[in-house]
Amino acid sequence: MKKSLGARTLAYCLPVYIVGSYGEEDKPNLMNAAWGGMCCSKPPLIAVSLQRVRQSYDNIINRQAFTINIPSVKYVKEADYVGVYSGRDENKFESLGLTPMKSESVDAPYVLEFPVSLHCELFQTVELGSHVQFIGEIKDVLIDDDCLDRAGSPDISLIDPFIYDNGSRAYHKIGDRISGAYLKQK
Amino acid sequence: MKKSLGARTLAYCLPVYIVGSYGEEDKPNLMNAAWGGMCCSKPPLIAVSLQRVRQSYDNIINRQAFTINIPSVKYVKEADYVGVYSGRDENKFESLGLTPMKSESVDAPYVLEFPVSLHCELFQTVELGSHVQFIGEIKDVLIDDDCLDRAGSPDISLIDPFIYDNGSRAYHKIGDRISGAYLKQK
Repeated sequence: MKKSLGARTLAYCLPVYIVGSYGEEDKPNLMNAAWGGMCCSKPPLIAVSLQRVRQSYDNIINRQAFTINIPSVKYVKEADYVGVYSGRDENKFESLGLTPMKSESVDAPYVLEFPVSLHCELFQTVELGSHVQFIGEIKDVLIDDDCLDRAGSPDISLIDPFIYDNGSRAYHKIGDRISGAYLKQK
Repeated sequence: MKKSLGARTLAYCLPVYIVGSYGEEDKPNLMNAAWGGMCCSKPPLIAVSLQRVRQSYDNIINRQAFTINIPSVKYVKEADYVGVYSGRDENKFESLGLTPMKSESVDAPYVLEFPVSLHCELFQTVELGSHVQFIGEIKDVLIDDDCLDRAGSPDISLIDPFIYDNGSRAYHKIGDRISGAYLKQK
């Protein structure tokens, strides 16, 4: 039997995007966004939605750039922290002992300790309602070299990312591989 | 050491959205989209990006509606199939033995066998490049009642969704819960 939950923002699976940006005097900031996803192949674009009250909102508008950092499971506390506290009150990198690295491709900081970072130039903003969607053009992706397999491809089990479940407000690990994709079935 | 992978669409974790729409003579269609994500809370909006060549692209433009269906792990073959074959050549519901149900809230079909479906009215289109982003306003979410916990909340372990890893072109299960979210840490 189907049950109606009404008009609500429930979907599976939601990412944990840690957004890096620079504020005034190059103060680096981080926030946690579950509202986002890839949105175009050519050019390579990724979207992330922010509320206007966020410090990161002003930062991205002013600098026209941001990073999306993918934390591994061992940084789940840090990832959650940056979604709870505001960069107006503290330097979250300092509070957490994380290292802000200046991107070589865009005007934004990335998190040295996280295994993957996407370096984005602001491509377009889309006003939607409570949130504004920032669409970023991916200028580079950095990955820890120990997260590559022998063929030099990113290995999800070494990256060890996690997802956010907004049905129960919890984070979950990624489990076993089920199968390959784009398989010919006939 | 960081390694640069250049400008590419790599991110973690990507969803498996199975998009339902009606074509001419109410022929139901399905496609598999990894480019998408939630994008606004009020109104509740979700984005999914499609290439213009897709049958689903025409369908959504014509009907101004679509569903996003979340498959459980046991439907991984069906989910992959709808991303490989075109609705121009076949009725994918019939090919797979899936049941198209007419949504009561929008002009699109949903997949009876999948545990969760989001029923969306087209809210906005955003032309980006190779892909067009369809932003849908979520009018209702249906869930199998046996995927609810005792308190009536969606239980991700009962829904059993999976993610797509485009680093290795494979599907992965969701693993154990790590922790709650929005925790006060100070």
